Amino acid sequence: MSRFWSNIVSQLTPYTPGEQPQIDNLIKLNTNENPYGPSPKVIKAIAESNNESLRKYPDPNADTLKTTIARHFELDDNMVFVGNSSDEVLAHVFRGLLKHDKPLLFPDITYSFYPVYCKLFDIEFNQIPLRDDFTLNIDDYQASNGGIIFANPNAPTGMALSIEKVEILLQRNPNSVIVVDEAYVDFANDSAVRLVKKYTNLLVTQTLSKSRSLAGLRVGFALGHAELIEGLERVKNSFHPYALDSLAIAGAQAAFADNAYLEQTCAKVNSTRERTTQALKALRFEVLPSSANFVFARHVSHNAEKLFLSLRERGIVVRYFDKPRISEFLRISIGTNDEMNALIEALTDIIASNS
Amino acid sequence: MSRFWSNIVSQLTPYTPGEQPQIDNLIKLNTNENPYGPSPKVIKAIAESNNESLRKYPDPNADTLKTTIARHFELDDNMVFVGNSSDEVLAHVFRGLLKHDKPLLFPDITYSFYPVYCKLFDIEFNQIPLRDDFTLNIDDYQASNGGIIFANPNAPTGMALSIEKVEILLQRNPNSVIVVDEAYVDFANDSAVRLVKKYTNLLVTQTLSKSRSLAGLRVGFALGHAELIEGLERVKNSFHPYALDSLAIAGAQAAFADNAYLEQTCAKVNSTRERTTQALKALRFEVLPSSANFVFARHVSHNAEKLFLSLRERGIVVRYFDKPRISEFLRISIGTNDEMNALIEALTDIIASNS
Repeated sequence: MSRFWSNIVSQLTPYTPGEQPQIDNLIKLNTNENPYGPSPKVIKAIAESNNESLRKYPDPNADTLKTTIARHFELDDNMVFVGNSSDEVLAHVFRGLLKHDKPLLFPDITYSFYPVYCKLFDIEFNQIPLRDDFTLNIDDYQASNGGIIFANPNAPTGMALSIEKVEILLQRNPNSVIVVDEAYVDFANDSAVRLVKKYTNLLVTQTLSKSRSLAGLRVGFALGHAELIEGLERVKNSFHPYALDSLAIAGAQAAFADNAYLEQTCAKVNSTRERTTQALKALRFEVLPSSANFVFARHVSHNAEKLFLSLRERGIVVRYFDKPRISEFLRISIGTNDEMNALIEALTDIIASNS
Repeated sequence: MSRFWSNIVSQLTPYTPGEQPQIDNLIKLNTNENPYGPSPKVIKAIAESNNESLRKYPDPNADTLKTTIARHFELDDNMVFVGNSSDEVLAHVFRGLLKHDKPLLFPDITYSFYPVYCKLFDIEFNQIPLRDDFTLNIDDYQASNGGIIFANPNAPTGMALSIEKVEILLQRNPNSVIVVDEAYVDFANDSAVRLVKKYTNLLVTQTLSKSRSLAGLRVGFALGHAELIEGLERVKNSFHPYALDSLAIAGAQAAFADNAYLEQTCAKVNSTRERTTQALKALRFEVLPSSANFVFARHVSHNAEKLFLSLRERGIVVRYFDKPRISEFLRISIGTNDEMNALIEALTDIIASNS
């Protein structure tokens, strides 16, 4: 606390990212990183941009990247917004499109950054409890609202809401922006992007951090009607016009030029997810049905925090949330088959030695 | 205008960056880029980080970079804040440290982003006119205030305020944060950084875009008392925790490891600036005394906008501001000697053919 801080600063409860421990030989299954590196074409494109041209500003509008993304999703260029990570995109979305006189609605269990943004931007919100089985029921979102946001697949549950249900929600709320945060969508079966042209109140956000293996490059984007995108551009150009550096622009473009690699990588991760789910169930874990690159699981008898700590002692880091309703669960990112074998082996051992 | 926009969005007047025209053989003297590329050590460090490790998140705190910067300036690690460009750093500064009940003070002629931030964050401000000779007189800043910010050297004038005067301002305003925006300081003679340990109300911001030739990498930083830095960290961690990507962190660290290169480059730019100033004066331009990598000049008889347009026709882009008090001036970035020779040649020709 300092007298030099603006009023808002002391009231903030900043987001706590998953730890990034600098330990050798660690099996890191705590921040949903992709176990496979980015497409070799990405590395090549970055290498080709890594030269004296870094002295120059990037294109502040990143037009070439926007065009690439627009073509990929069969949208117009003015339906794409890009930013330095989907966290930054979401920040602009909260300020630019979700701050209204009525409260914003989102699930009680979802990406834990949403209430942080609300505090930062002074946005009133209501958290709608997920049902007991952790499903989002759209009938719970009937209240008058200034917007609705949810992650789909949801985090940290991994569970997906059908796009048919998303469409009903869009139809029921023609005067609110519905934001579908699709950080994990490439590991799922369906995306709301196909509704973007049809509904002017839909905004879909995505990231290159997970499925495209580029958490280190910080690129996210939003897709929506040109009017929504213009609102975001106005906010961004009042904040920092050159959001993406030249290397991030080059790398992101190359990532979209290699969809075969994306599909291959996601298929591998999903196959490992299914193997891991079966193995966890065999160890008497309840595993929520995941459409993401992680699983959310609780053991019938073993305490989650203790399991988390025991795994950590063995050099395996997963994510544990000390929060209501989910404190019995571990969120486990899907690594390589070898990493998941090591996890299952460690859990088998921990459970056996504590039974 | 859209009914989906938050109230603030329609009131925004976003910042207009200098154009980034994609024309071959253009002589680009409009955005104060360094004509020399970054240190070869920067390119090497980025190349070494451009690999499969991009699948992982960067260190959200960029601790190694902070330590490097802290050592360079002989400060403690907790006196350094880093961000995705000094524009982003400034955005967090405005929200976190400059929004108070009393108005923020800054010059009428300075970095034109400041009023944009005030609008975005709803900060009351008073613009204090520079004197007729474009000097900042600290006696004009006696009013009760919620903070003071100015660029030093100032933009677009290039003129520097002595650090002795900055110190008096700090002493006169013990209850306000004084932000010295030193984007161009490496081309000047002195910096306020040496006062950072002595004054808890001083924050200095700098960038790697100009003197370190890394406009394309988007890295800026702030130096100040640990309490001020903590305020900025709280805002940043409520906005996007991983502000800098892995390649930017690696490149920025390498840039600070090669100060010989920095000094060499700045010396070359400053020498070209002096040559250019003399040549412009010979053409009957008034040139404000610059401590930056640009000059601000007006011709005794020729209209600035016409000169700007005539230069553009010849493939030379400089910056013209259609704003009160400075609409007779051109802001000309310092390029290579060859580029400046071409500029002088073009101006000679334009002036001769219009006299």
